[in-house]
Amino acid sequence: MINIGVIGYGYWGPNLVRNFAANRDCTMAMVADFSAERCTAAQTACPGLITCADPAELIASPEIEAVAIATPVDSHFELALAALQAGKHVLIEKPITSTPEQAEILIAEAAARKLVLLVDHTFVYTGAVRKIREQVLSPEFGDIRYYDSTRVNLGLFQHDVNVLWDLAVHDLSIMSYIIDAIPVAVSATGHGLPGQPEYVAFLTVFFPDLIGHINVNWLSPVKLRKTLIGGTNQMIVYDDLESSEKVKVYDKGITITESPEEVRKLRISYRTGDMRSPKLDESEALGREIAHFLACIRGEETPRTPGEAGLALVRILEAANRSMASRGAPVPLR
Amino acid sequence: MINIGVIGYGYWGPNLVRNFAANRDCTMAMVADFSAERCTAAQTACPGLITCADPAELIASPEIEAVAIATPVDSHFELALAALQAGKHVLIEKPITSTPEQAEILIAEAAARKLVLLVDHTFVYTGAVRKIREQVLSPEFGDIRYYDSTRVNLGLFQHDVNVLWDLAVHDLSIMSYIIDAIPVAVSATGHGLPGQPEYVAFLTVFFPDLIGHINVNWLSPVKLRKTLIGGTNQMIVYDDLESSEKVKVYDKGITITESPEEVRKLRISYRTGDMRSPKLDESEALGREIAHFLACIRGEETPRTPGEAGLALVRILEAANRSMASRGAPVPLR
Amino acid sequence: MINIGVIGYGYWGPNLVRNFAANRDCTMAMVADFSAERCTAAQTACPGLITCADPAELIASPEIEAVAIATPVDSHFELALAALQAGKHVLIEKPITSTPEQAEILIAEAAARKLVLLVDHTFVYTGAVRKIREQVLSPEFGDIRYYDSTRVNLGLFQHDVNVLWDLAVHDLSIMSYIIDAIPVAVSATGHGLPGQPEYVAFLTVFFPDLIGHINVNWLSPVKLRKTLIGGTNQMIVYDDLESSEKVKVYDKGITITESPEEVRKLRISYRTGDMRSPKLDESEALGREIAHFLACIRGEETPRTPGEAGLALVRILEAANRSMASRGAPVPLR
Amino acid sequence: MINIGVIGYGYWGPNLVRNFAANRDCTMAMVADFSAERCTAAQTACPGLITCADPAELIASPEIEAVAIATPVDSHFELALAALQAGKHVLIEKPITSTPEQAEILIAEAAARKLVLLVDHTFVYTGAVRKIREQVLSPEFGDIRYYDSTRVNLGLFQHDVNVLWDLAVHDLSIMSYIIDAIPVAVSATGHGLPGQPEYVAFLTVFFPDLIGHINVNWLSPVKLRKTLIGGTNQMIVYDDLESSEKVKVYDKGITITESPEEVRKLRISYRTGDMRSPKLDESEALGREIAHFLACIRGEETPRTPGEAGLALVRILEAANRSMASRGAPVPLR
Repeated sequence: MINIGVIGYGYWGPNLVRNFAANRDCTMAMVADFSAERCTAAQTACPGLITCADPAELIASPEIEAVAIATPVDSHFELALAALQAGKHVLIEKPITSTPEQAEILIAEAAARKLVLLVDHTFVYTGAVRKIREQVLSPEFGDIRYYDSTRVNLGLFQHDVNVLWDLAVHDLSIMSYIIDAIPVAVSATGHGLPGQPEYVAFLTVFFPDLIGHINVNWLSPVKLRKTLIGGTNQMIVYDDLESSEKVKVYDKGITITESPEEVRKLRISYRTGDMRSPKLDESEALGREIAHFLACIRGEETPRTPGEAGLALVRILEAANRSMASRGAPVPLR
Repeated sequence: MINIGVIGYGYWGPNLVRNFAANRDCTMAMVADFSAERCTAAQTACPGLITCADPAELIASPEIEAVAIATPVDSHFELALAALQAGKHVLIEKPITSTPEQAEILIAEAAARKLVLLVDHTFVYTGAVRKIREQVLSPEFGDIRYYDSTRVNLGLFQHDVNVLWDLAVHDLSIMSYIIDAIPVAVSATGHGLPGQPEYVAFLTVFFPDLIGHINVNWLSPVKLRKTLIGGTNQMIVYDDLESSEKVKVYDKGITITESPEEVRKLRISYRTGDMRSPKLDESEALGREIAHFLACIRGEETPRTPGEAGLALVRILEAANRSMASRGAPVPLR
Repeated sequence: MINIGVIGYGYWGPNLVRNFAANRDCTMAMVADFSAERCTAAQTACPGLITCADPAELIASPEIEAVAIATPVDSHFELALAALQAGKHVLIEKPITSTPEQAEILIAEAAARKLVLLVDHTFVYTGAVRKIREQVLSPEFGDIRYYDSTRVNLGLFQHDVNVLWDLAVHDLSIMSYIIDAIPVAVSATGHGLPGQPEYVAFLTVFFPDLIGHINVNWLSPVKLRKTLIGGTNQMIVYDDLESSEKVKVYDKGITITESPEEVRKLRISYRTGDMRSPKLDESEALGREIAHFLACIRGEETPRTPGEAGLALVRILEAANRSMASRGAPVPLR
Repeated sequence: MINIGVIGYGYWGPNLVRNFAANRDCTMAMVADFSAERCTAAQTACPGLITCADPAELIASPEIEAVAIATPVDSHFELALAALQAGKHVLIEKPITSTPEQAEILIAEAAARKLVLLVDHTFVYTGAVRKIREQVLSPEFGDIRYYDSTRVNLGLFQHDVNVLWDLAVHDLSIMSYIIDAIPVAVSATGHGLPGQPEYVAFLTVFFPDLIGHINVNWLSPVKLRKTLIGGTNQMIVYDDLESSEKVKVYDKGITITESPEEVRKLRISYRTGDMRSPKLDESEALGREIAHFLACIRGEETPRTPGEAGLALVRILEAANRSMASRGAPVPLR
């Protein structure tokens, strides 16, 4: 039985506590939050756990073997580093840190101490995204050519970051998991109200043979969660707002014909066929992710979203911020 | 009765011929197309009209007072210039020309000869877009902050231009008509299959106080036509695929509060209210546009989509091509 | 080359003329309509055909070998009987006649003279309905248990019949084609404004082992065309308003388990799996139907929607009218 | 502070307990359930409440002033009668009882003892249904002509009742609340698998000047919750699966014109106009219902869904069962 401590009981912390509490391979032992009211809420939700105001107390507790960090991003680095230095395994909210340098330090620290450092890229653990990856990597899909995602919201603001760091981080975690290639550059544009972080942003990620694009917006009149993925043999539509048909695989593809008589015509043809919406695993992603975290701690599995995955995202986000500041000027990665 | 000649009877020409034929203020007199088969089709559709293979013959015909040009874009300039020089009024497909310089010459020629030069930005004449403009310019809408459009298609390729010149031109014509401001720069990214024009592209248009974004794709598994328009008091969703509720006006807006006690919080609030989908004029846009063209010829109306509107679009498209070639590097306009 | 005459050039007649004219195995020779304006329209649409005001003239014409009847239903019997007696093959709009007795006479007359009598149940010739029939009759579908269709419209009235005879006739033609069983009784309810035919109606058709239900309405605020078909192994949703995914086959089914330990529980389980939307033949149904009509005349095919299919529908509609008049009291068929 | 006891902690009981616990005007004091496991779950959810296996113990408890009954329908009558006889106010799940006679006895008992008897018709307390009632009763709506509801589910079975008693009861509670008229008869049809209660049913409710229809199905491949309401001036679509636009009011109506020159035409015209989707109160309906229950106990409000409303529904359901057994034969009400 692994004893778990959770730091931060705000928006996401309660979901972590609930899922750790429901897992039989660990004990949901301790919660740290500076708000006494939230500590009470944690105890009501999970009777028997200990609470404290100071995360240092939790990190210092010898019973705690693993720490989950669900605080604002600017506190991630300090808390995670302290936890790793205290010998705890760490599950950390996305984005992993505010800068790539911080993420590199955490990765090195975890590696040196042989501790698990898992980033909570929750979407990676959903049935939908796992099925998409399986399909995209299958031979029948062909080669992926574009990834185009829209994630627009109804006015829920983050206080400390812009919309890329709040919303695009989800799409980047999905895109990185699905695409088996290294991005080489980004271009980003966006708009903010005077004195405020950007509420709308458009991010292009360049790969050697394909392109990714992410459209995020906090100030949309409607909620949209739609991703198009184009391959040479098949195409996918992933709509996270669909209740029962989130993933649709289209037997449509792009073919380049080389026949000489078509010189004057564009040598691309478009094939259409059936559409199939596969049955998905509908169990809660966070529950599966936590089981995976515990299995990694026990040495039975290898992190699917390790610190390195978090670092790759922060590199893209930081480059995107720079590109956005210069109206889309491309910023190379690495 | 104004005698009309139509050059080009391919994809769009039949729509022009049908609408000119249905208008009682003109006579659909002549069609020029190099294909004899298409000329026969034109005569079947509109018994009594004269056809010829050579557009020069049509342009030279003294009975013809106005010429509509529906040929590939690279022939626009030469044909339109000849028609203007022959003293004919001109209705021309979008984009008006292949370069801004060509458009400037046509505009000067039409002005010098006091001829009408109207660009066929058809969407501007739809009930939906006219209603959107009316709403966006009304005081209850507040100030427009963003315009975000998606127009993705099921594999219909243009041979001679990339997807921006084929599809984004529609969105640019709508955006320019709705937004009462001058764009200052563009950034564009895209992807093409080897040796082919870009099939997917993402275009940002920067205005002094707002941002426009257009997502176009020839290789989508599904067809989408969705535009979000955000204002400080209201927001609009325009979905051209909706049969009966194309335009939805949301009584939702963005407010920046200045109260000092909210220093720590983001000073933006989000208001929600009713949604309203106004009844639209459903008559055919091209029919209204043609009536407007004829009224302009008679001196009764002023062109709503004059050569200058076409020029503005070509400037954006040319800048977008340059930006796309350098991975999103911003290109100033003018 | 079979010479074709069309009687009635109102709502549907132009579609018949256009499709006969496009078929190379026949000549669209003659149109009869009492309106001179409509006769002119027919000649414009199909230059070269002869028109007349009196259908008797068309029926008497010795060149005409086959007659299509697209007039109001109360004239069907007289016109079709005259055409058959004159030795013409007949394609007739649905419903075939106003009463079952009339249909029986037409069937007998056609049989006696070895003439083709085809009822224009157009939906039966669509790619969607043919695919559904194929799927429903396949072993993987299991046994059909219910057919439930909604067809509600935006205020298009028929003058001479109620909404069952106008709209439900479509669903009955589809249902009869898909379900390989004989209906035994009907129950119908509906509502009409004072002195008017029913504008909304709900029709249940009882089969020995399954149930059919049809909901039709002329006064709906929205247009709906949705059919649910439940089988023991699979289920189908058919939405005729979907542009690209009209037919969806769900790998969901009904199982009755007999295990004794489940005595207290309901012995029905529900299985879920993938959904598949097959690619459909999108060619125009009426064109295929006309090709079939001509092939039947040539003796190469057997009518897929013969007079008997039309008779079966009229029997249901007449029984439904009687049931509706007595608030749903069941009316046995035959 | 009113002390509350809840009988039954199965599917719906936890919602009652959670909402009573959140209300400051009462104390969630006691839960009775024969399952020890469920009693433990109740205590975890609401620490401090007392549990017992025998509802008689709860009913006999002198501290309990009001009892909520969330058990299978066949136990409603006995439990509610005992609670009323013990002087407790009663909130009871729908349907109120298995027979009209039982409901009449409960109503009489509550009246004689001046106790509140409220039926848990939850939908009546939603923002959507309250807004619909407000709109339907407004002069701009005109007279209601039809109510047509579809509620089909994905294979969730009730063990003890058929689909009418499980699902149509929701629609009947909404319809009865919205329509200010007394139903006069019903006709119902349905289908059941051998030896099982009906899984699909179609219910028509006749009113003097309008018609209601309800389509319910446990074995649908998709979930639908759509209601059309037609008035002479306006029409409403209520789709409970829409997240943000559940209620749409269409400015479309039915007009009967009396002009003599239209004798041959149908004298009905159809008007179209704007659509409006009003902002709805999105607070939880059950919370509002419970506040209303407590206000009724304090004598401050009059029950909106009293025993009589429950009785009216059970009368319709019982008549529907009889009609369904005779294939739709109409059954008069009262």
